[in-house]
Amino acid sequence: MALIVQKFGGTSVGSIERIEAVADLVVKTKQQGHQVVVVLSAMSGETNRLINLAKQIDSRPSSRELDVLLSTGEQVSIALLAMAIIKRGHSAVSLLADQVNILTDNMFGKARVEEVAATRLKHELEHNRIAIIAGFQGRDIEGNVTTLGRGGTDTSAVEIAGAIKADECQIYTDVDGVYTTDPRVEPNARRLSHVTFAEMLELASLGAKVLHIRSVESAGKHNVPLRVLSSFKPDEGTLISFEESDVTSNVVSGIAFNRDECLIKVHGMPQGTKHLAKVLKLFADNGIEIDMINQINHKVEKVDYAFTVHLNDYLNALDLLTAEQQQFDAHAIDGLTNVAKVSAVGMGMKSHSGVASLFFDSLAQENIDVMFVATSEIKISVLIDEKYLELAVRALHKTFLTENE
Amino acid sequence: MALIVQKFGGTSVGSIERIEAVADLVVKTKQQGHQVVVVLSAMSGETNRLINLAKQIDSRPSSRELDVLLSTGEQVSIALLAMAIIKRGHSAVSLLADQVNILTDNMFGKARVEEVAATRLKHELEHNRIAIIAGFQGRDIEGNVTTLGRGGTDTSAVEIAGAIKADECQIYTDVDGVYTTDPRVEPNARRLSHVTFAEMLELASLGAKVLHIRSVESAGKHNVPLRVLSSFKPDEGTLISFEESDVTSNVVSGIAFNRDECLIKVHGMPQGTKHLAKVLKLFADNGIEIDMINQINHKVEKVDYAFTVHLNDYLNALDLLTAEQQQFDAHAIDGLTNVAKVSAVGMGMKSHSGVASLFFDSLAQENIDVMFVATSEIKISVLIDEKYLELAVRALHKTFLTENE
Repeated sequence: MALIVQKFGGTSVGSIERIEAVADLVVKTKQQGHQVVVVLSAMSGETNRLINLAKQIDSRPSSRELDVLLSTGEQVSIALLAMAIIKRGHSAVSLLADQVNILTDNMFGKARVEEVAATRLKHELEHNRIAIIAGFQGRDIEGNVTTLGRGGTDTSAVEIAGAIKADECQIYTDVDGVYTTDPRVEPNARRLSHVTFAEMLELASLGAKVLHIRSVESAGKHNVPLRVLSSFKPDEGTLISFEESDVTSNVVSGIAFNRDECLIKVHGMPQGTKHLAKVLKLFADNGIEIDMINQINHKVEKVDYAFTVHLNDYLNALDLLTAEQQQFDAHAIDGLTNVAKVSAVGMGMKSHSGVASLFFDSLAQENIDVMFVATSEIKISVLIDEKYLELAVRALHKTFLTENE
Repeated sequence: MALIVQKFGGTSVGSIERIEAVADLVVKTKQQGHQVVVVLSAMSGETNRLINLAKQIDSRPSSRELDVLLSTGEQVSIALLAMAIIKRGHSAVSLLADQVNILTDNMFGKARVEEVAATRLKHELEHNRIAIIAGFQGRDIEGNVTTLGRGGTDTSAVEIAGAIKADECQIYTDVDGVYTTDPRVEPNARRLSHVTFAEMLELASLGAKVLHIRSVESAGKHNVPLRVLSSFKPDEGTLISFEESDVTSNVVSGIAFNRDECLIKVHGMPQGTKHLAKVLKLFADNGIEIDMINQINHKVEKVDYAFTVHLNDYLNALDLLTAEQQQFDAHAIDGLTNVAKVSAVGMGMKSHSGVASLFFDSLAQENIDVMFVATSEIKISVLIDEKYLELAVRALHKTFLTENE
């Protein structure tokens, strides 16, 4: 008997038929002898319907009241699922954030979970009930309703799993696991049976469609094994845990990529960390996150700096730098949007040498130039011309991940 | 400066436009220097939408979970109204049942309010905020969500007004007050500027469309003056309080009527209270409420009993009595559905004699026979053939309530 948390997203509970299917799945897990806690999102479309009502009143509605409004979405889905499970002859109880004491900070719309009390949940499980909890929502210390923002229900599920020391937190979604790369780019992409938390964090740009990065971080922190599976055709899915797989012999677990990065260059600035610090402060003060940073020394006294930022911040970043160009004593400022980042990620890199060599060889054979390199213990990332992205992904996948027949 | 509770029903918040209009009305009251607490129903149609979702899953859904589901309706309307008021530059805060500590018993779907804590509300009012509370819902001692059933939001408003010792509880609805009788039957019906709680309870069959009887009882218990007004064209409406009006000189305040009563007769039963008690126990055990009871002595040893029951209970009551006819030693059992009850209600009856005489004179002049009579200190009710109902109402209204030009 295991203690299992099952999280179902909006499309998984998007209609009465889907809710009935989820009820069958939950009951099946219970009948296998497990204790089950379920965490739900709102029915798909419901959150947008509610936001639309709010926008009709105020284009920038009160964030406190928006959270009160949006949190009704999950309340509806948990009540309906509880009814469906009860109809199947099992005990079930729906629980709201205040009933399980999901304590968050008071950042309405993007609150962070501070604590989940296990007492009430343990009580329900001891009485053989299936507990069905509203995801995405919490209460601050004053009892105000809060919501957790994007990917919030994943975070709820992981925090709850951590609080009750669940054996596994299963994330049911509309894809059936984490893949070696995006199958739309590389038809030979394979589903991974297992990845580590460290790999999953690096694979976030792949996993973003599957798991919100914050929930992966939380799962790592609480040491709760995560499993990503499809609610439409549930099978083994992909397990994410601290243990390194001894089954897969791949050095590299996945090829991730990101089309949303842009390159910004500041030419001919005076050398010295204090000048770079000024530029970085300007970005930080304006909420612009930098992914990669590069420094090119031309002469003794002058350097070029290159940064990558998200496409959404590109124009803003260029404007800010241009306005301060004189203060920075920079020769010129320019940028590129038609770039993309491609990365190879794998725990095996730590112990296997020669990965970087194979990586650049693969790209060189396709005549793909690299503008930028960034590495970590388990990752190599490069920035390339966006038009070569698919080619680069396929080349790297073939080198590291395509199994020999 | 007064402390005012304003309650708005489903049609009053039935659309974004209506919510905007309510926001204007609330803000206007605030600007007049009053402290305002608002209690809302769900947007009209929303509760039915939610019930329909539940019924798709289970024709008899779990009552606990149905309450979790239905309570989202009010949560949506309070958040939207708070947004609309904040947009108008005033401070407002939406509050759920658990945030105001509306404690109820655990009768899901028809819970009774046991206590409302004034602390949180007083705190919001002291900080100059408009408090907007979800009506219709509460929490039991274990923190489960409960709902109050039919007319629940009126009850919420009155209980809250009682807890904070409000100067007035205003019930905004789609009619503009309490009338001397139904204007669809008697075009000369006038709106009453003032009635007493005692009269309002007797006028319930008129007031049922306006106020739920339980909320009138609660208002009387807490001694909170109630005012019924239209949210579509707000004016003075009708005030309901303990004070007797010294403005209106009418002995009778209103003519109430009810088409939903039926007559049941048990013929030729043995005399004696114990036999009647058996019949009454049969009704009570089966949840059938009796309105009027009459006893007709034919001979020394045999009596006929007549009862009136609600139309919904008529067939059930007849079946039950027929099944037990032998045990009751009754000669025959029959009934009539084409009957109606008409009543004259007024505090003035206590001190004015001759009301009964005028009452029966009016009916006699129209050749209307009376089957049944019941009286209280402030009411005379009779049961008549349903086909004479409108005629009886007009005749009585003319006698007691039509003002001389």
